[in-house]
Amino acid sequence: MTKLYHYPLDPFCRRIRLSAGEYKQELDLIEEKPWQARAEFLQLNPVGAVPVLISDEDVVAAGTEAVAGFIEDNRPEGCPSQVGANDKERAEVRRLTAWFDTKFHHEVSAPLLIEKVIRRFVPPEAGGGAPNMAVVRQALDTVRPHLEYIGALTEDHNWLAGDEISIADFAAAAHLSVIDYLGDVPWSENEKAKAWYQRIKSRPTFRTLLSDKVTGMPASRIYADLDF
Amino acid sequence: MTKLYHYPLDPFCRRIRLSAGEYKQELDLIEEKPWQARAEFLQLNPVGAVPVLISDEDVVAAGTEAVAGFIEDNRPEGCPSQVGANDKERAEVRRLTAWFDTKFHHEVSAPLLIEKVIRRFVPPEAGGGAPNMAVVRQALDTVRPHLEYIGALTEDHNWLAGDEISIADFAAAAHLSVIDYLGDVPWSENEKAKAWYQRIKSRPTFRTLLSDKVTGMPASRIYADLDF
Repeated sequence: MTKLYHYPLDPFCRRIRLSAGEYKQELDLIEEKPWQARAEFLQLNPVGAVPVLISDEDVVAAGTEAVAGFIEDNRPEGCPSQVGANDKERAEVRRLTAWFDTKFHHEVSAPLLIEKVIRRFVPPEAGGGAPNMAVVRQALDTVRPHLEYIGALTEDHNWLAGDEISIADFAAAAHLSVIDYLGDVPWSENEKAKAWYQRIKSRPTFRTLLSDKVTGMPASRIYADLDF
Repeated sequence: MTKLYHYPLDPFCRRIRLSAGEYKQELDLIEEKPWQARAEFLQLNPVGAVPVLISDEDVVAAGTEAVAGFIEDNRPEGCPSQVGANDKERAEVRRLTAWFDTKFHHEVSAPLLIEKVIRRFVPPEAGGGAPNMAVVRQALDTVRPHLEYIGALTEDHNWLAGDEISIADFAAAAHLSVIDYLGDVPWSENEKAKAWYQRIKSRPTFRTLLSDKVTGMPASRIYADLDF
């Protein structure tokens, strides 16, 4: 079976897991803590980041772009592309995917993941320790405008880029699900965004994310609740 | 004709111009200074970044992922893909493209471009002013290991990901060409990397980059020289 080296709370790995799940591609998940910089893992991906995929034919796809590309290139025949059906749709899907994988990640999910999770696990000399609360507060303040954007995008259609679910939804939901695990999404602030997240959270492929557990860090009360 | 909003020294725009040129897709280049945050441009791309492409059919592709995807999706029929011919090649091309667009950009081309170019043009209250020389020095020190990596990758084949030129070469050359304009690439340090850059610099599509000019900032002496 195709192997995926992943870290449960890594948003990029989550995006890949959703994408593969919707294409009915099974993945054998192997947990990797990228900050440990294991020598064998650095052989697979010299930048030391998850996700990394190894196919049955021993193709190594290292990093989000390579893994996402592999999943898309190997989608089941006849299955509609998760990137969109024509130039206009594909441009919008790719724009929004980059919005969440770059802008949202930089402003919200990366700082929260680093401050609240990773700094617990790395030694002090590598930057470990208590979270920097100024960084945490700034990231939390930035969640709201992103929820408003999701709300505006889903005003007239079910999914972020249009009537069909796409990698833009998987990227957005992946990043939000990480901070939802930490209990940091103010869902009551935007009904439309909450309704969109309820739709994607109810899909069978999402269940794998809802059962993720990080040792010593229980998920927020509503994390696995479909009626939050 | 397809329009491309670009900034001449933006590495992502340069990657797109090389890619489109190699596919013989003509682009009508429109210069945009993204730090000016023009209202009409923000309508096209809410994150305010170049490149943005507008097709003859009025498809707006905003951001590198959307534009690169559009160029690839619309390549001339029968033309070999610049992403590679099979899963193994495509995984390597995508890994290396991300290496230069993410790691090299973060460590080298973004800090040098910001400190040496953009800070000249923005007002002091928006971060303009003299370059921060500590940042510049650190970025310059990091060029060398990247040249070594290029040298190692081209030890046994002509192009970064194998025997065929790919978007990985366009990405790497685009980022390096920006700092070469500034005169900051120590080419004599790695003969293999220099030979690879000579190969790509000699291609007809590269000429458009070599004639780029930034007002008040002449290119380095060797920038347009094919025998540097």
